[in-house]
Amino acid sequence: MTSNDSVRQVYISGELVPEADAKISIFDSAVMLGDSITESTRTFRHEPFRLDDHIKRLYRSLKVARIDPGHSPAEITEITLSTLDANRSLMPEDDDCWIVHNISRGLLKHGPSPSQANPATIMIFTDHLDLRGWAKYYTEGCHAVTAMSRAVTAQSLDARVKNRSRLSYTIADQEARLVDPEAQVVILDVDGYVSENKGGNIFAVIDGELLTPTPENCLAGVSRQTVLDLGRKLGIPTRETRLRMYDLYTADEVFFTSTPYCIMPATKFNGVEVGNGQVGPVTKQLLAAWSELTGVNIVAQAQRQLK
Amino acid sequence: MTSNDSVRQVYISGELVPEADAKISIFDSAVMLGDSITESTRTFRHEPFRLDDHIKRLYRSLKVARIDPGHSPAEITEITLSTLDANRSLMPEDDDCWIVHNISRGLLKHGPSPSQANPATIMIFTDHLDLRGWAKYYTEGCHAVTAMSRAVTAQSLDARVKNRSRLSYTIADQEARLVDPEAQVVILDVDGYVSENKGGNIFAVIDGELLTPTPENCLAGVSRQTVLDLGRKLGIPTRETRLRMYDLYTADEVFFTSTPYCIMPATKFNGVEVGNGQVGPVTKQLLAAWSELTGVNIVAQAQRQLK
Amino acid sequence: MTSNDSVRQVYISGELVPEADAKISIFDSAVMLGDSITESTRTFRHEPFRLDDHIKRLYRSLKVARIDPGHSPAEITEITLSTLDANRSLMPEDDDCWIVHNISRGLLKHGPSPSQANPATIMIFTDHLDLRGWAKYYTEGCHAVTAMSRAVTAQSLDARVKNRSRLSYTIADQEARLVDPEAQVVILDVDGYVSENKGGNIFAVIDGELLTPTPENCLAGVSRQTVLDLGRKLGIPTRETRLRMYDLYTADEVFFTSTPYCIMPATKFNGVEVGNGQVGPVTKQLLAAWSELTGVNIVAQAQRQLK
Amino acid sequence: MTSNDSVRQVYISGELVPEADAKISIFDSAVMLGDSITESTRTFRHEPFRLDDHIKRLYRSLKVARIDPGHSPAEITEITLSTLDANRSLMPEDDDCWIVHNISRGLLKHGPSPSQANPATIMIFTDHLDLRGWAKYYTEGCHAVTAMSRAVTAQSLDARVKNRSRLSYTIADQEARLVDPEAQVVILDVDGYVSENKGGNIFAVIDGELLTPTPENCLAGVSRQTVLDLGRKLGIPTRETRLRMYDLYTADEVFFTSTPYCIMPATKFNGVEVGNGQVGPVTKQLLAAWSELTGVNIVAQAQRQLK
Amino acid sequence: MTSNDSVRQVYISGELVPEADAKISIFDSAVMLGDSITESTRTFRHEPFRLDDHIKRLYRSLKVARIDPGHSPAEITEITLSTLDANRSLMPEDDDCWIVHNISRGLLKHGPSPSQANPATIMIFTDHLDLRGWAKYYTEGCHAVTAMSRAVTAQSLDARVKNRSRLSYTIADQEARLVDPEAQVVILDVDGYVSENKGGNIFAVIDGELLTPTPENCLAGVSRQTVLDLGRKLGIPTRETRLRMYDLYTADEVFFTSTPYCIMPATKFNGVEVGNGQVGPVTKQLLAAWSELTGVNIVAQAQRQLK
Amino acid sequence: MTSNDSVRQVYISGELVPEADAKISIFDSAVMLGDSITESTRTFRHEPFRLDDHIKRLYRSLKVARIDPGHSPAEITEITLSTLDANRSLMPEDDDCWIVHNISRGLLKHGPSPSQANPATIMIFTDHLDLRGWAKYYTEGCHAVTAMSRAVTAQSLDARVKNRSRLSYTIADQEARLVDPEAQVVILDVDGYVSENKGGNIFAVIDGELLTPTPENCLAGVSRQTVLDLGRKLGIPTRETRLRMYDLYTADEVFFTSTPYCIMPATKFNGVEVGNGQVGPVTKQLLAAWSELTGVNIVAQAQRQLK
Repeated sequence: MTSNDSVRQVYISGELVPEADAKISIFDSAVMLGDSITESTRTFRHEPFRLDDHIKRLYRSLKVARIDPGHSPAEITEITLSTLDANRSLMPEDDDCWIVHNISRGLLKHGPSPSQANPATIMIFTDHLDLRGWAKYYTEGCHAVTAMSRAVTAQSLDARVKNRSRLSYTIADQEARLVDPEAQVVILDVDGYVSENKGGNIFAVIDGELLTPTPENCLAGVSRQTVLDLGRKLGIPTRETRLRMYDLYTADEVFFTSTPYCIMPATKFNGVEVGNGQVGPVTKQLLAAWSELTGVNIVAQAQRQLK
Repeated sequence: MTSNDSVRQVYISGELVPEADAKISIFDSAVMLGDSITESTRTFRHEPFRLDDHIKRLYRSLKVARIDPGHSPAEITEITLSTLDANRSLMPEDDDCWIVHNISRGLLKHGPSPSQANPATIMIFTDHLDLRGWAKYYTEGCHAVTAMSRAVTAQSLDARVKNRSRLSYTIADQEARLVDPEAQVVILDVDGYVSENKGGNIFAVIDGELLTPTPENCLAGVSRQTVLDLGRKLGIPTRETRLRMYDLYTADEVFFTSTPYCIMPATKFNGVEVGNGQVGPVTKQLLAAWSELTGVNIVAQAQRQLK
Repeated sequence: MTSNDSVRQVYISGELVPEADAKISIFDSAVMLGDSITESTRTFRHEPFRLDDHIKRLYRSLKVARIDPGHSPAEITEITLSTLDANRSLMPEDDDCWIVHNISRGLLKHGPSPSQANPATIMIFTDHLDLRGWAKYYTEGCHAVTAMSRAVTAQSLDARVKNRSRLSYTIADQEARLVDPEAQVVILDVDGYVSENKGGNIFAVIDGELLTPTPENCLAGVSRQTVLDLGRKLGIPTRETRLRMYDLYTADEVFFTSTPYCIMPATKFNGVEVGNGQVGPVTKQLLAAWSELTGVNIVAQAQRQLK
Repeated sequence: MTSNDSVRQVYISGELVPEADAKISIFDSAVMLGDSITESTRTFRHEPFRLDDHIKRLYRSLKVARIDPGHSPAEITEITLSTLDANRSLMPEDDDCWIVHNISRGLLKHGPSPSQANPATIMIFTDHLDLRGWAKYYTEGCHAVTAMSRAVTAQSLDARVKNRSRLSYTIADQEARLVDPEAQVVILDVDGYVSENKGGNIFAVIDGELLTPTPENCLAGVSRQTVLDLGRKLGIPTRETRLRMYDLYTADEVFFTSTPYCIMPATKFNGVEVGNGQVGPVTKQLLAAWSELTGVNIVAQAQRQLK
Repeated sequence: MTSNDSVRQVYISGELVPEADAKISIFDSAVMLGDSITESTRTFRHEPFRLDDHIKRLYRSLKVARIDPGHSPAEITEITLSTLDANRSLMPEDDDCWIVHNISRGLLKHGPSPSQANPATIMIFTDHLDLRGWAKYYTEGCHAVTAMSRAVTAQSLDARVKNRSRLSYTIADQEARLVDPEAQVVILDVDGYVSENKGGNIFAVIDGELLTPTPENCLAGVSRQTVLDLGRKLGIPTRETRLRMYDLYTADEVFFTSTPYCIMPATKFNGVEVGNGQVGPVTKQLLAAWSELTGVNIVAQAQRQLK
Repeated sequence: MTSNDSVRQVYISGELVPEADAKISIFDSAVMLGDSITESTRTFRHEPFRLDDHIKRLYRSLKVARIDPGHSPAEITEITLSTLDANRSLMPEDDDCWIVHNISRGLLKHGPSPSQANPATIMIFTDHLDLRGWAKYYTEGCHAVTAMSRAVTAQSLDARVKNRSRLSYTIADQEARLVDPEAQVVILDVDGYVSENKGGNIFAVIDGELLTPTPENCLAGVSRQTVLDLGRKLGIPTRETRLRMYDLYTADEVFFTSTPYCIMPATKFNGVEVGNGQVGPVTKQLLAAWSELTGVNIVAQAQRQLK
């Protein structure tokens, strides 16, 4: 097992294979139909963060998509931890990793029926948590920019079903980057309410209150939930509500949440300074609380990667 | 090249590989983001049908999705024909094949930017055109059933961008199959207008007129265009319009169009007979005209596969 | 008054008549325009349940519909109780009855004006509460199925105006029964939010919380209110919110509420098991509390009718 | 049959009964659920006008509502004509009559199933065509007024299913009459497009073109079709399109169409004069053509009733 | 400065000028594009009420509209107070005044760019608070009437950006006045929810609870906030929610709030009595509390003007 | 009248005044409510182009806005021509001028009523037609960019009512300029259909057909009509339809139309080349035809101004 120590191993439907060999058939429904369910977890101090919440949401998504993974949640948890163990030696001491689950409906059957004809394809991989792209935003803040297109409505596909049919997110992200190549996209729903980022949730601090959209029109993110939990613990008034562009323009603070970076402050919205244009005190307080919760200085970890 | 004669060859980014080896990395944006553009062409008498139209639409989709395929349309056409040639010996004389193009944005880059970091992944394969699942519908008609979910609106992702982020279609299809395991789904848009089938377009014949939705809310299908062309040639009044469930309930004839089966009559809609419950004369006339156009008896070809 | 003892008496605009003679002119606006307001109350131990709430809602509906019933709420209450008394001897000791109010705008006037030209037609009847159709669902749970059509929006006709123009509900119900002839329909509103059943409200228990749509898009049911009241009394966190299909797919428990059956558990939603596919503990707790409140074992009463 | 000569006879499910006895059970689904399909035809010179079109539409509505009338179209036609014959002696020579069909799903069954448990209730009656309420509008024009509420969307209940669940129409009509007690209502759909009158269609003449909404959001009226037919015959450019309030405010002419009055000019819209405030030349031309078509001077017939 | 004592002075971009000379170029963007931001404050006992809240909102509106006023909030406050001082001698002892801010983007530049080419035009004026038009409503209540048109959606222009592009409000107001020349308009949003009055907010008292729309679809009025604050202080349950016409029809009390009149009771809604048709106790209690808060008997002050 | 020869004269409600004195009271409803109707005409060879069409549309807008201008169309035409004459000597021989009409409801009245209390304010001015900002686009093409906000829906304010309440257009324009400071904005409606530019219409040439949105969601521009007229005269298939972003991304040619520049080609759409990135042949053909129609080389006239 010497080789395992030098290259990352990926779990694919029962086997650990070297990352470079982690391939699936182009006839898999993941490729042919974007028909896969996913989760992204990260570690703190090399231990998965809220893995149970991720596995629970994974099974909710699979249920709605009617994909039979062929494993119980406990089994998937065990496989996940084994996969993490197989790659543990590759994690630098100061860094952490992603743990990504992709579960597709498996190889397609020909003809008119959409029912699952073959075992699901289970892909689980860990990956070095490369934070270099986000590191500077912890102190400078990023530029949040509204897309021109609108989020897929839940009556077409509920954003809470975390899935890999994400072309609309990619297009929205590209639109935002027309304004600023480093923009982080703010996608609105068809009624003009703030929905989500291409892979994260959005918060605003307005008159001392911590606000974020209800999951009516966005993913019910685990990082989002962590911020709500931390906010309540810190005594910050928090509310799940509906936000509009006006709220982000006039907010005192705005930030994104997502698995890899946890909290990413935005100091500009559509070219206009958020608040006084600096990362705000509530954002900092939440980042500090999250660091304390996990025993990892989140900002320092990311910034070390820049050196 | 003897082996080429016995197994199908798939073109993947510059190489022909045996079908069983046609795999891509799970880190490809096709797998990770459903981020690929597609076309499905078929042959008649072993020659591709309206390939130029398919290639033209492919490049329109790529343009909107901002994927650089790294090839000109002429080059892709040439590769397509070569791939077909490499598999020609495997086609039974009486049968035909699919030609499928999948083009993804390639391997993903880490971090916050969505721009294309690597060459596109080009997948082109031919496949035996297995019509057994549809063959009986030419004479019996299928059961068209409305989904509960609604089509993704064009302001989220235009259905004319033929792509592989299709989970919403799969879910809609499953909903229809709750009514009848063999149902063919009729997806409505969020305003309740008939949009499309999971992989095809929908026509109705009402009071002698041939009607189909405008491409405002559905794929501008090549088969759909062929039917419109044939209809006009045959002197049947045709109109692109907006249809509702009422129109399908009260139509004299209803049928689907798609690349593999060309025209699939529906004789039941949500449990109610369409017209007199038989495949109608306009549908038959169009099928006959299409057979004549291509020199292939479309119905007979499919039915032979059942034997 | 001997005859009163053997056939049910119906109150029609001032008179008690035998049920078989309970007829109205086909020129009544109830028949010609579906122009009538309604309430359905039931008895427990032969006494009307929350009759005041029903009468209050009745007068709210009449006000919005601009129908002048020609009686005060107190008068209608008195007539209701008299009608119940006239039929009391017909109620088996163990069973209960419906009390239904229909109030139409009365006989139509010809010509262009819609104003009420004649006295309202008041119909009040009691009816044996036949629970046989629902009895088995208390232990097995029913199958909740989403309709293809969408609920009438409140800007066309507010669902809180409890009325007899219900063709859209009937059609939605028929659509759900295409999936399962015994399906109980879940109607979504035009934005894809869960609205109501054809004659009842919908609840979900998710992560220990009792949830039901706000009356923005559904009837503000008296049974619904009873469940909210009982839930609060039992210390169950309750919330009026917006629900989507995702919530029903992933809920731990789902149930309907309506006057005749009080609470009807659903153990399947669109073919997928709700929770573990059994009637859940919160549902049972609420049914027990309701039974206690009324002194009638609701489940036993229904099941006795099956024997 | 002497009595037939002196009172109108109504056909109810197989019997002719005197109008005063034309009653149905309050347990009929017509009363309990507004669950009936309808048609309104009129005679010209005592002969039904386009009866075949009405019967055809009736059967389309029945099909969508899944009501089995228990009779073929030919049988209903025959019954209709017999009913007309039975009342023919009562028609004054100069006047004409309505012929109204109401078909309900029949007596309700108890319990959870909505399927049709009993024979349909067939109601067919003729009625004196009382035009006094409309007569003056032929020369003065009426006042068209927009309702505050919006039309039921077709994804809830298609307006082409001509039915008796019409409370939303009555409420819209009442709203318009707040502006003017004699107002004729113009109902908009939820997107603000002109839909229909409570019992008729709406036309505008703008820059010489005759315009009316497509039946996407309104009844496909037989009178509407007659005007389109007459317009084409007269060489007036006609177009089915989408109209907004702006179009009615700035139109040269506006009129309604409906079975009893055929064409009713509107000379005021929301308090503003339409065109020059006079009944316009195209409206007059169409009325004249319709009179010629039927051999009845439509305006004169109505105005005679005022005397 | 004698003249200052006899005519009101208006501040325009740095100068105090007599009211009659308060003019701006027709090439100002205020005239050419309705491109100005505004606030309306009033005094109580000659002191501005919640001026800081108005100035804060003014700067939020300017930020979203990207107008650079060229002054800090503190400077604008100071100018405002000076302008008030300059007119103080003209205020009758018992009366109060408006203080209105209009800030436009200034003179337009030619050609295709919309950026601000010139200094903003700052208009600040005080005006006698003429309450005669509203005085009688404090005791009689006004007539609230729904418009036919719908409010501009926030995804077009957020109502919280208090601005002078108000033609849609004027048109809605005119529509309501078709019903009653003294009507106060109730504008619905495109989904049929109650939004706002042309210059005020709307409250309902239902079953003891004080309800008003969230600012998702209306101005976040300072008077609205004052009522919410007073309600909470008085122990009245208050809730920001979504209201529909049904709520106003069936409310116990309805009132408007706006800067000049503070609270204006409505005793009729679309021709129907609100509650018992009298000004209600909660409305009176709130008016009394507001009078107490400011030391001005609000009702008496207005009614004195009628004498 | 010597002074008239050296400075432009503006007509304001009965008087010609020098441009620098062209001011209105800040209490005018134009300033206070954006309550004015407008038209922009231009001259070719010093003669107004389609002035009758502009005046006709002006009166349609006034009618819908219920502003009484106090003049007949003929009178306004005469005043317009006189104003033009008064400024004729100032027009350079090679150049042309705008003629702008602004008509407001006049000075506001205090209190609750919105009716017009004073004579309308009539503003008519000519202005040098400064084309320098647009001149380069005739050969290079401009960059068309989609706004994030959506157009005001017609059920709030119909875009055909050409008015000065244009803040939403200004904000949309600013959003587009975040992408490119020289961007020309493409505003979508709330359903994602292409509506209009902030002051112009939008055309696409696709597969040889000339397409533009119907005036359901945009101004019915006179320049737009001119292009449609020219297209038909030139035998180019033209169609008023619904366009989406997909159409502009994949069009062969895209251009804007507006009074000052007539036709402005766009060679980039949201950062992507339109067609081959050059001004296309149909655009050039239409510009040439328009030049021929008016006797002014439109492109040359604009480009001369750059020298």
